[in-house]
Formats: sequence, structure tokens, C-alpha cells
Amino acid sequence: MKKEKFEESQHYKLFHTAEHVFAQAISELYPGNIQLAVAHLDEDGFSNDAKWSHAITIEELPKIEKKMQEIIKKDLPIRKEVVSYEQAKELFKNNSFKLEWLEEIAAADKEISLYWTGDEYVDLCKGPHVASTGKIKAFKLLSIAGAYWRADEKNDMLTRVYGIAFESQQELEDYLQRLEEAKLRDHRKIGKDLDLFVFSETVGKGLPLWTPRGATIRREIERYIVDEEIRRGYLHVNTPDIARIQLYEKSGHYPYYKESMYAPIQDEDEQFMLRPMTCPHHFELYLSKQRSYRELPMRIAELAQLYRYEKSGELSGLLRVRTFCLADAHIVAKPDQAKAMIAEVLDLIEDIAQTLGLKTGENYLFRLSLGDRNDTKKYFKDDASWEFAENVLREVLIERKANYYEAENEAAFYGPKIDVQMKNVLGKEDTAFTVQYDFVMPKRFKMAYIAEDGQEKEPIVIHRSSIGAIERSIGFLIEHYAGSFPVWLHPEQVVIIPIGEEQKEYAREIAEKMKAAIPGIRLSVDEDNNTLGKRIRNAQQQKVPYMLILGKNEVANNTVSMRLRNGENSNDQTLEHVIERISEKIREKSLEL
Amino acid sequence: MKKEKFEESQHYKLFHTAEHVFAQAISELYPGNIQLAVAHLDEDGFSNDAKWSHAITIEELPKIEKKMQEIIKKDLPIRKEVVSYEQAKELFKNNSFKLEWLEEIAAADKEISLYWTGDEYVDLCKGPHVASTGKIKAFKLLSIAGAYWRADEKNDMLTRVYGIAFESQQELEDYLQRLEEAKLRDHRKIGKDLDLFVFSETVGKGLPLWTPRGATIRREIERYIVDEEIRRGYLHVNTPDIARIQLYEKSGHYPYYKESMYAPIQDEDEQFMLRPMTCPHHFELYLSKQRSYRELPMRIAELAQLYRYEKSGELSGLLRVRTFCLADAHIVAKPDQAKAMIAEVLDLIEDIAQTLGLKTGENYLFRLSLGDRNDTKKYFKDDASWEFAENVLREVLIERKANYYEAENEAAFYGPKIDVQMKNVLGKEDTAFTVQYDFVMPKRFKMAYIAEDGQEKEPIVIHRSSIGAIERSIGFLIEHYAGSFPVWLHPEQVVIIPIGEEQKEYAREIAEKMKAAIPGIRLSVDEDNNTLGKRIRNAQQQKVPYMLILGKNEVANNTVSMRLRNGENSNDQTLEHVIERISEKIREKSLEL
Repeated sequence: MKKEKFEESQHYKLFHTAEHVFAQAISELYPGNIQLAVAHLDEDGFSNDAKWSHAITIEELPKIEKKMQEIIKKDLPIRKEVVSYEQAKELFKNNSFKLEWLEEIAAADKEISLYWTGDEYVDLCKGPHVASTGKIKAFKLLSIAGAYWRADEKNDMLTRVYGIAFESQQELEDYLQRLEEAKLRDHRKIGKDLDLFVFSETVGKGLPLWTPRGATIRREIERYIVDEEIRRGYLHVNTPDIARIQLYEKSGHYPYYKESMYAPIQDEDEQFMLRPMTCPHHFELYLSKQRSYRELPMRIAELAQLYRYEKSGELSGLLRVRTFCLADAHIVAKPDQAKAMIAEVLDLIEDIAQTLGLKTGENYLFRLSLGDRNDTKKYFKDDASWEFAENVLREVLIERKANYYEAENEAAFYGPKIDVQMKNVLGKEDTAFTVQYDFVMPKRFKMAYIAEDGQEKEPIVIHRSSIGAIERSIGFLIEHYAGSFPVWLHPEQVVIIPIGEEQKEYAREIAEKMKAAIPGIRLSVDEDNNTLGKRIRNAQQQKVPYMLILGKNEVANNTVSMRLRNGENSNDQTLEHVIERISEKIREKSLEL
Repeated sequence: MKKEKFEESQHYKLFHTAEHVFAQAISELYPGNIQLAVAHLDEDGFSNDAKWSHAITIEELPKIEKKMQEIIKKDLPIRKEVVSYEQAKELFKNNSFKLEWLEEIAAADKEISLYWTGDEYVDLCKGPHVASTGKIKAFKLLSIAGAYWRADEKNDMLTRVYGIAFESQQELEDYLQRLEEAKLRDHRKIGKDLDLFVFSETVGKGLPLWTPRGATIRREIERYIVDEEIRRGYLHVNTPDIARIQLYEKSGHYPYYKESMYAPIQDEDEQFMLRPMTCPHHFELYLSKQRSYRELPMRIAELAQLYRYEKSGELSGLLRVRTFCLADAHIVAKPDQAKAMIAEVLDLIEDIAQTLGLKTGENYLFRLSLGDRNDTKKYFKDDASWEFAENVLREVLIERKANYYEAENEAAFYGPKIDVQMKNVLGKEDTAFTVQYDFVMPKRFKMAYIAEDGQEKEPIVIHRSSIGAIERSIGFLIEHYAGSFPVWLHPEQVVIIPIGEEQKEYAREIAEKMKAAIPGIRLSVDEDNNTLGKRIRNAQQQKVPYMLILGKNEVANNTVSMRLRNGENSNDQTLEHVIERISEKIREKSLEL
């Protein structure tokens, strides 16, 4: 049940070697004009950041690919060499980026290793790689972008070239096809096409402004989550998005978590912080009264707006923002209730995922993130609690036959966790949100309850989300559905199109009847003077699930003709039938039309 | 239709003279031990802030009242004297507070006036007063509190004594009775009794944490407002609670409005502000696309969390907080649509007030706040636009026969407004929120629309709320209902009480049936081992609208006995009947039980 780490996978090694081949190719093609900075490797491929003396264009990529092909053909062996700090310093003396890395490796007292490509090229690198360049059977350079050194806009702007490599031509072709598909599904593109959200330079980077249509999707999801959680016994609260710095000193987030937090706000003699986490607020609410065992488990929940200051270079549409709304909760429980609580949380997560049309295995899976008993700096020292908590999480996963794998050394400071790993359209896995077992914060906040025997006892806390950040979830869903959201979520559910002038009155009448029959239905009448074809195309582009087209026949028969966004038609339906169909799909949150 | 200003009213003069009598009394009773600082006058009475050399207790008040009575009996005339800066300085040379005032009056080049009580007492004062102390026919000292000089906690802590005065004993008695009632209705007290919200020193003053019960009321009101507004054509959006300082420089809020704003957050090379207003965010959304006349009027709405840094001395429960959620909107319209829009907004405000059980005249009224053509510093210079806008607002108020009065020199910088004046339990009037006509911001933000003739034109903006700040509204409603909220708002709608052990199963069965029949109903079963009487009292204290009491008879007859929080009983009802009654009251947002 352990999953191979990406950093040890064949894919990783292949990407890594391909990146070295790329770096060698440009060094040979543009001698003296390139200062190599750093490589990035992830499940999407490799990228190389370097300082170029000219602005490279997409037209130059085939030339570089040709050079790379030559290096691959030579099947040069990849060889590791461990060197001293002085040797490395001499080797990279003309490269300020490498020297900066080198300093850090030396300061951390880590091994300094080089990787040679034959005798032709060498780089400061910790590996691993494939055995020789010939293992790369197919590759492609994909795109060019600007990137700041260390993602910090105060640093040099570098040129980043993205590429991908495979062990067969077929894999490359499959990948390129998926990539094309992903581009069409890019949530930033669809977000613009469907007018769901915008950004404003004046408001600030990474701070989305939701248009009426996007805010509709948000509202539908938020209400669904809140209602579903309340139905399951969660107590929804509302706490402020700021607090005095003392609160985060008490929780230990400050200064430990300082890097991710916005700077303090200094007023009178107080400092306020934008909250990066909801936990301390919920703990303060818990502490506002004496609590009894009768109140446990107490599931304190909130749609909490959180603030984390991401570097501008790391922002990306809705997936990486500087403020997000987390569907958050903290379950205060007795330790013997933990297992049932974890199971209940996973039920909720899977039920919500199912409602949203996401499948376990295909779209998401679980990762059990464990601690390390020997690393008492990274993990709170309490072996017995770790043992107990890890077993609870593992047992729940096994008993429910969950799709999961284990990952060592990925736990939180205060306990193990189950990560919900989402897979994007390209199959890339990312932690969307987590379920954490915490036996440390209750101590720190002196949380207690009066037990059955009248004694004061310490509870445990489960930190959990049910869907993650609303912004990110919507970004993910936009790509998942390519904008064709389920009816209940779609910002515009019905467009009524009267073919000509004579059907306009009938169209308005139908609209009124539908509004009365389905309160809150989002419909419009397209009375523009465009052709019928153009109006259908407009609705189609907006992915409107239902188009009701009204011509002479429909007026005469007192019916409507329905066209679905998937192209299906059903003519001459009674309005009652159409209303029943649509209201059922909305009510049931159906994935069908 | 002009309303007398409070500062010119008989009440004001009476309170003012009574305050002087109080100051004279304590100066005579505690000679050399009191430094008088400042008086406050409002519709609740007068108060006097002074530095006392001992901690005064409530037991001393009768003695002071007796001394005041003596001064009143002498019927001393009140006389104004205008003096020079030097004369005044000499007179108050031993009082640092008065000297500070004096500096400011002199700096502003205003008249320096004294008011004499006979020849016995004199104070720096701008009046007005009643003719003589004998006009006070009844008075009472009410309470003692601490208060910082100028409401700033960095300053000296002073002793504040509150009092009230009337022209007859009957008025005083009526007032004291209303005061008793108001104390019982104090939202801070009821908020605690019903466990609706708490404050935490660690989180910070003026930052309420809503418990599950309070958050329920909030959620019900918020959803009601959003749904009602959407039904009326508002476009609900969602914009971030922070923005770069540039946004507020563009709108002019910064530095003009700086005093009310939290300090900037400095990150990388940017400054972010917690927003005190929603307008610039909505304007940025408007500007994100080219707009056509077809889109106007565009009603951009949001439940927007806002941040204003009130001085700690001015905070008061939910009524004066440091963050609040405003039901805000900006209607972008053509000038010829303005009148219809204002009328539509007042309809919405009155409909919402009615749903909440608030009556025009009794609980709220409108104030038309006008500008001053000659004051071009306080008001944007554009006489024609002022004329037009003031007439639009006035016409709407007259045509709907609204309960309103006019107030000069109370407009916003960018145009006239209609203030919604709420009256609290004591009859004190306060501006809860406003409807503003704005012809300045569209210019500043270069907002435009393409008119019917293809030309770019400038719209006007109506800033409006429909209920005001959610926090404040709830504070107000708590006092209005003394915690007995309408069923749809109440955090706990039904408590089911099985009389004995044998009825517990039946109680659970009834609970399940009710939950199935009324989705989202908030009910509980009180199975505690307390006596029946105690359990009824508990529910009564929590103002639970419906108690269902189940004994042997009810089980035998398959019925329930219902007790209302107003004491009414209806025994032996069928469950169907009870479900129908309760679900109707919830659905209809009825004020009845």
C-alpha cells in the first residue's frame, strides 16, 4: 500500500535526464550567452530556468530539439561524482545561481554531487537519472515563459522552457493529446469565456472578483456544503477573519508560520493578523464555556475565508490564490470517538465528491501521511499518541476499503493525517485538503471537558475539510466539466428562444410559469434580433443545459421544443413535463440533463 | 417636514442645564477633589466625565441628587458670557481638560463662551440651556462607568456619571419604566443568555465570534436577503475583503477616510488594506467589461464584510463593532432611471422591515439628508446635479407618502441620501444605513456605458443597503424581540419533551417524522432527567417557540400536546396538524406562532 515516490520513479529520472540534455544543448548552441539557473521537475514534465542574453522565441525550439536528439543518439552514460565544496565552487565560479545553491547545500552540510553526461556536460545535481541519454525515446519542448529566480519578483527575471520526455513515441502522442484537451479545459480560459471571475491589477494579484455568474456557482456549492454538514450534526459558526497577533502566538502559528502570513496590521498598541487558519478561532469558541462529555463530539464548522501570502510568481488562476474560503471544521472528541469521527468525515468527503461527479481512483484518492518517531524537531514527541493516531487512521482506511496509499514523513507537526489527493485533467496528483488528527493543540489551548466521572479531561481534535477551498474546488470543477456544470450548479439553467416576433409573448409566459413552478430557477429569454442559429450557438457556448425553442407549432400546440447542450432534441413537449424534468434534475443535484 | 434638531430641542436644553447642576453639585460636595472634563448629551440624557480623587460608588448618588435638588430649588438663572481667549485661559488654568478644549476652540477661531449658573458656577460651554435651574421638574442620576478621555484608551480613565431630566415627574417615571424594560432587552445580556455570540480578549475587542445558535440567525437572515434581492433583479457577486492601497487612493477613501481604516499591511513592495467600503470593488467589476445601456440598471450586490477601526471606548456589543457584514449594493443606472431605482430600493427596505416585524414610524423612519451649495469643501461642486438628485429623492418620498423628514447639511460628499433612522427600545433614533445618490464616483472611476446612440455616456450610482450591517441588525432584533425571534429565525424551533422514560421512544419517533416533513427544522429532544417543570422552564428561558410535551395520553392517542412560549397550550393535537402549522409559520416567515 506504499506508493512509489515520484522522486524515485522512472518518469522522474527520465524528465531529469532530458532536462540535462536540454541544458547541454542550449549551452552548446548559445555558448557564453546562457547562464543556467535551476531545473524544475514534476508530474507534468521538466522545465529549465536560465538567464538568456536574447529573448528566445518558440521558433527556436526545433533547432534545440534537433541538438537534443543528437545528444540522445550518442547514448551518453550519466555518472555521479561527489566533490568537495572547493571543487564545486571552482567549477561554477562564473554562475552566481549555482553558487547560491552551493552555499545552501554547504550550509546544510549535505553531500555535494555532480552529474556528468558522458564527458560532455556536468551540472550540480542530486539526481537521480536514467543510466544514459539513449533511454529517452521521445521528448518535446512545449512552451516558454518568464519566471523569477526563486519565484520572487524582486529577483532577476529568467526564461523558463518547459519540456516532456517518455520511453516511447506512443506515450508522447497520448500526452500531447491530453495536453490539447487540458488547454481547452483551462479554468482561466473557461472562466473568461463563461464570465465567472476576473482579476484586477488595482485590487491585487491572486484576489479573484467573482462576477454574478461565478458567484452563483459559489453560492450553490457553499449552501450545499453548509446544509449537508448541518444535516450531519456539524455546528456552523461564524468567526472573524482577523485576530490579535496574540492568538497566533498562542497557537504557535506565529512566528512558526509567519512566512505564509500577511504582515501585521498595527493599530493603537495592538497588532492584528489576517488569519491563515481557522483552528485558533474555533478553539476560542470552545473555550468560551465549560464543556461536558455530553457535548462531545462537537463538530465546529465554518466556511472560513483565509489569507495566505503566496509569492506572486506562484499564483495561478483560482488554483493558487492569496485568499480562499475553506470549508473547515474542528471536531473536538474523546480519543475513543476518534475512529468513528474519521470514518464519518471520509463518508462526507466521498458523498460530496460523488455529488460533484468525482470518482475515487479516477479523480481523487487518499494518502495516509505518517510521522517519524525519530524526528522530534519536525514532529511533536509523544510516541504513544502517534502510534494510536496512525493506527486509527489506517484502520478506518482499511475497513472502508478506501483507495489509498501511505507516505512516510508527510504528517503535520501535531499528528498524522489523511490527504485527499486530487488528480487533474492531465492525471497530475495534488493535495487538495486534509483530515488531521491532532493531540497537541488541545494541550496548548488547555481545552478540556468534564468527563462522566466529573473529572476534567483533555479531548483530541480532528481538523478537516469536506471539499477544500471553494475557489480551488471551482477551478477544478471548471476543468473537470470543461464548463458544462451539472444543472444545479450552472449559472444559467434555461434559455428560452422565441423564433420570431410572434412568439415573444408566449416565451415570456413560459418564463413566468417556470419561475413560479421552480423558485430560484435561473433562466432568461433571448429576445435579441439575432438569427435562431446564432442564439442557439450563444447558449451552446455558455454551456446552458436547456434551450427551449418556441416557434409557430409550439404556440399552436401549447408545447415547447427542448434542445440540450449535448445536442439532443426533444420536440413538442408539454411544459409540465419539461418543468418536472428540470426541477427534478436541480432538486436531485443530478449529473444528467 | 423639517424635524427640529435635537441640539435645539427643549430636551437638549434641559439635559444640558441638569448636567451643569450636577457639575456644580459635585464641585461643592467634593471641593478640590474633582477635575471636570466634559459633558455628553444625547437623546438618552446627559453624562458627565470627570477625574475624581476617589472611586465614587452608587451609594453616593442620593447625596449628590440632594445637593442638585437644592440648586434647582434656588431657580438660579442661566446666563451666557462671551470672553477672550486670555480670560478663559486664566479662569481654567488649573484644568488641563478645559485648557485642551480651549486650545481647539481658539485654533478654530470660534466664539469662546461661558455659561453661568447664577453667580455660583461657571463652565466653558456653547449652550443652549433653559432659562433657570427651576425648569428642571424631575431628574435622576442613573449609573456610573469608566470612560477614557476622548474615548482613547491611551488617555486618562475618567469617571462618567449618567443622568436624565424632565419637565414633569410623570415623564421621569415613564422613562424609568422604559429603562428597566430596556435593561432586560439589552442584546448583550440576551446574547449571553441565549448563547448567540461571545467575545474573546485574545481574538480582539469588537470582533464577535458567533456561536452555532447565533450563526443560525445570521445564516437565515443572510439567505433571506440574498434570495429576496436576487428575485428582484440584483446580481450578487463576491469580491475580496482586502485590496491594494491603490484602489482606495483611486476612490479617494485613502487618505480621506484613513482615520476609520485599519493600518496598511506591507508585503513585498505592496500595501494592502482591509476594506472599509465595497464600492471600489464593485466599480472594478463593472469596469472589467465594456457595458451597454441594455445592462442598465445593473444592481451589483454583495454581503460584504467590512473593516473599520473604531476606538475601543466606542465599541458596544453588536451595535458598534470593528468588522461587520453590510448587505451592500451599487446600482449603476442612467440618470433617467434613478427615480424608479430609488423607489424600488425603498420598496425593498420596507418589505424587509415588514418581514422582520418592524413598523414605519414606530421602529424606523426616513431622513432626507441634503447638501449645501455654498460649502464646496464638504460637498462636490455641481449645483445642477445636486438639484436634480435632491429632487429625485424628495419626489420619491412624497409620492410614496413615506414617513420622513429633511435634514440640511447631512449629505455625503458625492450627493444627497436617504437615511434609514432606526428607533431603539428607548425611542432613541440612530442612522442604521443609507441610500445614496452618487454623481461623483462614476467620474472618478471613469465608468461608462454605450448608449442607444452608440456614444459613450456616464452613469450615476446609487449606493444602498437593504437592511444595514447584519451584526447591528441582529443586535437590534434581539432587543426588539427580547430574544423571542419569529419561528423562522429562532435558533431552536421545537423542543420535544417526553414526560417519562416510557415516552422517550415516542419522542424520538416524532422527532424523526418532523425532520422528514420539514427539512432543515431545528429541533431537539430533551431527554434529561430533570423534572418536567424544569425542562419546560429551560425551553422557556431559551424562548423556544414550540414545546411538544409527550405523556401517556399522547402515546395512547398518537397525538402531541403543544405549549407555546407565550404560555398558550393546545393539547392532543395530531402530528400532521402540528407539522402543518409549524412548517407554514417557517415558510411564510410569520410573526405569529
